[in-house]
Amino acid sequence: MKKLSLLMDFYELTMAYSYFKSKRYLDIAVFDVFFRKIPDKGGYAIYAGLNQVIEYLQKLSFSKDEIDFLKEKGTFDDEFLNYLQNFKFSCDVYSFREGNIIFPNEPIMIIKGPIIECQLIETMILLTINHQSLIATKASRIVRAAKGKAVLEFGARRAHGYDASIYGARAAYIGGVLGTSNTIVEYKFGIPALGTMAHSFVQSYKTEYDAFKAYAQTYPDNAILLVDTYNTLKSGIPNAIRIQKEILEPMGKTLKGIRLDSGDLSYLSIQARKLLDENGLENVSITVSNSLDEFLIENLLNQGAKIDAFGVGERLITAKSESVFGGVFKLAAYSENKELTPKIKISDNPIKTTLPGFKQVYRFYVKNMAKADVITLHDEIIDENSSYELFDPTYIYKKQTISEFKVEKLLIKIFSKGELVYEVPKINQIREYSRGNLSYFWDELKRLENPQQYYVDYSKKLYNLKLELIKSSKK
Amino acid sequence: MKKLSLLMDFYELTMAYSYFKSKRYLDIAVFDVFFRKIPDKGGYAIYAGLNQVIEYLQKLSFSKDEIDFLKEKGTFDDEFLNYLQNFKFSCDVYSFREGNIIFPNEPIMIIKGPIIECQLIETMILLTINHQSLIATKASRIVRAAKGKAVLEFGARRAHGYDASIYGARAAYIGGVLGTSNTIVEYKFGIPALGTMAHSFVQSYKTEYDAFKAYAQTYPDNAILLVDTYNTLKSGIPNAIRIQKEILEPMGKTLKGIRLDSGDLSYLSIQARKLLDENGLENVSITVSNSLDEFLIENLLNQGAKIDAFGVGERLITAKSESVFGGVFKLAAYSENKELTPKIKISDNPIKTTLPGFKQVYRFYVKNMAKADVITLHDEIIDENSSYELFDPTYIYKKQTISEFKVEKLLIKIFSKGELVYEVPKINQIREYSRGNLSYFWDELKRLENPQQYYVDYSKKLYNLKLELIKSSKK
Repeated sequence: MKKLSLLMDFYELTMAYSYFKSKRYLDIAVFDVFFRKIPDKGGYAIYAGLNQVIEYLQKLSFSKDEIDFLKEKGTFDDEFLNYLQNFKFSCDVYSFREGNIIFPNEPIMIIKGPIIECQLIETMILLTINHQSLIATKASRIVRAAKGKAVLEFGARRAHGYDASIYGARAAYIGGVLGTSNTIVEYKFGIPALGTMAHSFVQSYKTEYDAFKAYAQTYPDNAILLVDTYNTLKSGIPNAIRIQKEILEPMGKTLKGIRLDSGDLSYLSIQARKLLDENGLENVSITVSNSLDEFLIENLLNQGAKIDAFGVGERLITAKSESVFGGVFKLAAYSENKELTPKIKISDNPIKTTLPGFKQVYRFYVKNMAKADVITLHDEIIDENSSYELFDPTYIYKKQTISEFKVEKLLIKIFSKGELVYEVPKINQIREYSRGNLSYFWDELKRLENPQQYYVDYSKKLYNLKLELIKSSKK
Repeated sequence: MKKLSLLMDFYELTMAYSYFKSKRYLDIAVFDVFFRKIPDKGGYAIYAGLNQVIEYLQKLSFSKDEIDFLKEKGTFDDEFLNYLQNFKFSCDVYSFREGNIIFPNEPIMIIKGPIIECQLIETMILLTINHQSLIATKASRIVRAAKGKAVLEFGARRAHGYDASIYGARAAYIGGVLGTSNTIVEYKFGIPALGTMAHSFVQSYKTEYDAFKAYAQTYPDNAILLVDTYNTLKSGIPNAIRIQKEILEPMGKTLKGIRLDSGDLSYLSIQARKLLDENGLENVSITVSNSLDEFLIENLLNQGAKIDAFGVGERLITAKSESVFGGVFKLAAYSENKELTPKIKISDNPIKTTLPGFKQVYRFYVKNMAKADVITLHDEIIDENSSYELFDPTYIYKKQTISEFKVEKLLIKIFSKGELVYEVPKINQIREYSRGNLSYFWDELKRLENPQQYYVDYSKKLYNLKLELIKSSKK
């Protein structure tokens, strides 16, 4: 990751300067990162981007050039610029583990430290988590729809910029895709990059057969032939079969696969499978691509399409159906006179009223399945040997008492006073962790449409604190 | 821009290697970049990203590390890796000027050179142009809807990765926004970055008044106060007015503006204007934000909202209504035995049949307004002193003969055999050029919904070539 210290909304700097001038900049604040709505009306989201947030925070400093630029803007005095030049990140950061399953309104990251620092890092934290969680969540939907068939990320050319193609592929991998078309993603993260040929390759030869022949001779062990440049069933597949018989078989090799990129993928894949099988090519795989998403994949499989792998492009890498993950960054507590005072923002729109205080999130498991997440105050302890009353924070008469449960603290410490205290996992560990976590949730939650809603409750202490602050603000 | 040589679909490399092994890699090819559909059913698109394509092509080379990585993949032999290690870009590149108005199916960029090079640069060219043209086009719609009121790009936190926030803001500026919230965009491109305060700033103080006071004392010359943290009309505006009277007036200063970020922006802005005006604050500006787009802005203005500036976030930076710009990269000609042979890809879907040959695009102006774009063969000359018959390439009976017209060649040479032969304009020149160009088009084309469709025609020579190739392919 490159150095992006000035990637911040300018208001982070104007606020920071005002805190600095008012000598309040070292006051301790607590900020929550949370989101309010799962994209595509899904039942869950996947948290991604933490490793890049860590990398950013570790590198955060301002170069001479950057300071000179800020000086030239004429907004800030030398004392403040001097502070920035000597900037050292010193906050505590708590976060869900990357790849975990996340739900609306629970804090997925908490930053506690000098308010000036919290403010300066807001934009990059939101940008990183919003982008990668959006794509990981979309990928997870698509992978589920594919019911065990391979899903490959093919979207680089339609991504929103270079990083979107790189970190988007990373997030898609966390969400469950098997690989990407984007070479640099393997170079950077070790995520498998793969691909074969475009229509231009076929067109550049006098005949489709000549193109296939050249390709099979270059890649006798793993040729996947794009069969739809001219006519899939009349030309593409017959030529692929000829290649097997005339070129590969004499070499003792087998065609690896074909790819369809246009036409009716259900009809064509079924016909292609038939033609291949009739010629003894039962092991030749069929990959399809062309504006796929979770709904089209589900439909194709329901119609009996014979597809082994799906290449998914623009609709995954831009999360086309809903291209925004709305993570926000809200003040939850502030120190006036050393002690943290919980803060609330009250909105006419109840969903926009924030949750006050320095918090923690527990996940309750009953019989090894996730039952509910409960947001608590940071130091609350939940006793697994007692019973616990869960209640809906909106409809508080909806309650149930559970016993024989396990709890897991979801917010773990990542930075302690600016020092990394967390062992940063590798991408494959994150992907496995995500898959493992998803298995603790019921299938009802994972439906593409109208999923069951997971419980995100408050502890009684947190609920009472919120009520109290709403009351006192009305005075 | 960082070095992104391996940002390419892996199939670019597998094709390149096959061309290399077949000793066809230095054969000359012509590739067209074009798109098929204007996002949001708009009447025009804005071409952006050319400067970044140029920068990429100038830097394109493969480092020792990158070569080692490719070697380890085990797909390529040393001879090919050696070719990559010594890679030097040597193609001709023709392009529309950045910021120009573009339409479906016309080549907006043409690459002519060794097929191996054309193929290796495909992904980055498409990614760059697709992303920036998408955002510039969306920005242009939003700026039009704002009818001369300022539009500011506020989307960094919801962008798809870091580059999306940076180059997205750049593209939005080309499309007409006045500035951005993203500081690094001013640092890199000189595009004005601005911003004031978040709700957290107000919340961190005991009272809203205290927060406003601290801010106004820090920025007596340009304080814009966020008035919706508690209650816009009962608390926010009255406190802003008190700040003017009690803090700024005694200093001989005037409050610069207020910002509304929630609630009904039409009602609140009208009431806010009234309160401000009643207190002699006619010059205090009203900025609004909160999930705005072109339709909401048009509605607000139609309802008489009193708004001076619109801050537009997620719906601009992710082009939420349609997050994909579908630029493609298609083979148009190939040299077999030195001479370029036009190539066509015929699809069952007529819109997907490509235009063969090495081409040029002319824009026809009649009475200083753009009349039609005509795609021709590359060396066709159009005589402004004769008449010219325009005809619709789909419904060829629709024709008209024009005289007294001017023509402009839209594809100009950017690289000649790999050398840059184009004077790269600065961002403000691009923005001005774009605005100037848009003024040559009728308003009917610029409607947000159901716009008039602009003519993109073929020359007779090109039309006949296409027909001929379709015929001969049927044999």
